Amino acid sequence: MRVNVPKKTLADVLSNVERIIPARSSNPGLSLLRIDLEDGGLVLSGSSLDIDVRAKVPADVSGEGSYAVVAHVFGMVVRSLPADDVELDLTENELQITSGSYTTKLQLVAPGSTAVVSFTDELPGEIDADQLAKALTSARYAAAVADFQAVFRGVKLELADDRFRAVATDGFRLAYYDLGLGTGLEGDVIVPARSVDELLRVLGDGPVRLSLDGGQMSVKHGDYSLNLKLMEGAFPDYERVIPANFPVSITLSASRLAEAVNRVSLMADKTANNRVDLFVKDGVATITAEGSYGRSQEELPVMQEGTDSEIAVAYNARFLVDALGPVGGDVRLMFSGASSSPSVVRDLGDDNYLAMVVPLRTS
Amino acid sequence: MRVNVPKKTLADVLSNVERIIPARSSNPGLSLLRIDLEDGGLVLSGSSLDIDVRAKVPADVSGEGSYAVVAHVFGMVVRSLPADDVELDLTENELQITSGSYTTKLQLVAPGSTAVVSFTDELPGEIDADQLAKALTSARYAAAVADFQAVFRGVKLELADDRFRAVATDGFRLAYYDLGLGTGLEGDVIVPARSVDELLRVLGDGPVRLSLDGGQMSVKHGDYSLNLKLMEGAFPDYERVIPANFPVSITLSASRLAEAVNRVSLMADKTANNRVDLFVKDGVATITAEGSYGRSQEELPVMQEGTDSEIAVAYNARFLVDALGPVGGDVRLMFSGASSSPSVVRDLGDDNYLAMVVPLRTS
Repeated sequence: MRVNVPKKTLADVLSNVERIIPARSSNPGLSLLRIDLEDGGLVLSGSSLDIDVRAKVPADVSGEGSYAVVAHVFGMVVRSLPADDVELDLTENELQITSGSYTTKLQLVAPGSTAVVSFTDELPGEIDADQLAKALTSARYAAAVADFQAVFRGVKLELADDRFRAVATDGFRLAYYDLGLGTGLEGDVIVPARSVDELLRVLGDGPVRLSLDGGQMSVKHGDYSLNLKLMEGAFPDYERVIPANFPVSITLSASRLAEAVNRVSLMADKTANNRVDLFVKDGVATITAEGSYGRSQEELPVMQEGTDSEIAVAYNARFLVDALGPVGGDVRLMFSGASSSPSVVRDLGDDNYLAMVVPLRTS
Repeated sequence: MRVNVPKKTLADVLSNVERIIPARSSNPGLSLLRIDLEDGGLVLSGSSLDIDVRAKVPADVSGEGSYAVVAHVFGMVVRSLPADDVELDLTENELQITSGSYTTKLQLVAPGSTAVVSFTDELPGEIDADQLAKALTSARYAAAVADFQAVFRGVKLELADDRFRAVATDGFRLAYYDLGLGTGLEGDVIVPARSVDELLRVLGDGPVRLSLDGGQMSVKHGDYSLNLKLMEGAFPDYERVIPANFPVSITLSASRLAEAVNRVSLMADKTANNRVDLFVKDGVATITAEGSYGRSQEELPVMQEGTDSEIAVAYNARFLVDALGPVGGDVRLMFSGASSSPSVVRDLGDDNYLAMVVPLRTS
């Protein structure tokens, strides 16, 4: 069996597929890439414990057949090829890769050794890739990294008529993004945040087809098919902790605020929650931090609502900066009164985004 | 005391000085930056165990005085400043840094706490910075990284009338570069390779003044003064191991050969010296590698001298690629006969460079 394919075409798709397949696994089958030869192209597929992936690579193919090779080795070789074109010659036991005057022979594995993956063609849901990406990136950062209850490491999707919300929280901060449109699907599901990252990497332009079935969300977009395993467990009832009343709020450039917080936090004690203090009074926000090396301060003019009050509140600097990330222009930072109750971040140019940050106790 | 200075001017010099000063040290004095205020500028100085550094920063200075601050904290703050200009206000105990609406106060330390460093103005030697940089970079890579006798981690400089040679070896490979000119200094010295790296970073255009005295090489170049502690011990008698006769040699593009070796070595077993095999016969060089994942091969047409012989030799791929690094155009790779005796690399466009690589035993 022989395949001729431009190096760039193969390398681009392979890198997205290879990243999902674990380079090392206690189950050696999991580190394999399956290669199926079809009329008009190659089909590459593989799986981690959380994601199945399949992608088509348009190519000049003679013959049919199924093969398996160690994914990261194949990827490493393809990336290094010297010429613009690649020839793959496949026998039962060996994959010969030729490009220019360079040749590599890799051992093949029986295709039955790979994880069994299947992809449905029944995908009743649909959403635009740009919109899906915007919603997922706006919420995903608020998911917990590790050492937390599993659902805190996921992104919840709330799907209904005229409703698509992505929401994540680690208990100290929360973010959601509403698309205000339906996908044709209904239900609440939790997708692991790391699976969301992989989905985001393959999203380009055009429609994304979706289905929910058998504990997974299936996605089809362009040449890619993905199955994302869903998380079990109850997502926290987050809406009840979002404050409704804000005696004081300030409006200013989100990037200006984020830069100032980053700068001031250089003096913050990293072992004490990376604390920065924010004082708001008379249309001026003063950000300060103090640690063993010294003290830093920056003042920013702001548009203040609730001018008869002043605000003193402390945050983990990173949580505040993360919450500002999705805001393109001006941000409204809203204070719910007592210094320990949550602050809310809204994008003045986009009502669909909301973030909440729980202040640090100031003792 | 007050200093006004453009942020970029201060940040550029500070980064070169700060990199030499250890961020952490069991001797807290070593992690300090000394700041002296002089007419027309700041003088920043500090020391590691191997290098003393001093640099002038032109600035608008009112007053005189000497201060000390934790170097990496000062560097971190200066890099993050928001505006183009910086004001430093120094009192006995505190350095206040102001830039735009941002202010930081850092604790100062008594200047007597810093390491005592002095820099000579008697520098009888002189060399052009470009030439010094070329010689040092061409030899430095061949020095050992660690776990070797100390002199193998140094670069030897051989200074005499009409002679400046930089040479380094780790016992498995060797590189030297001859400038064929005198500096006004005489003697053989060994400079730690890491100190050579720091010297290379501050070399720009123009003359470099040198002196050898009291176990150190002193360097003055532009606004920088450095003292590089010299290494003690006998450098190996390397010239006697460089072969004189080469029954076979090949000539080809150095970059083409390096790329092919890198590519082929992807299949090499990293735990077995990263071995690549080179076969030369009838004007074709064939590079192969074999490991647990498979086998790779690339053929390159070469200009071969000694065409009645064939050559089979094995190298650590990285050592061969490193040796080709300083060669801009075509390289001559010269084989000394038996497969275990060293190969020599010459730059066809620059007689001053020589590298030697000891082949792997092929048993």
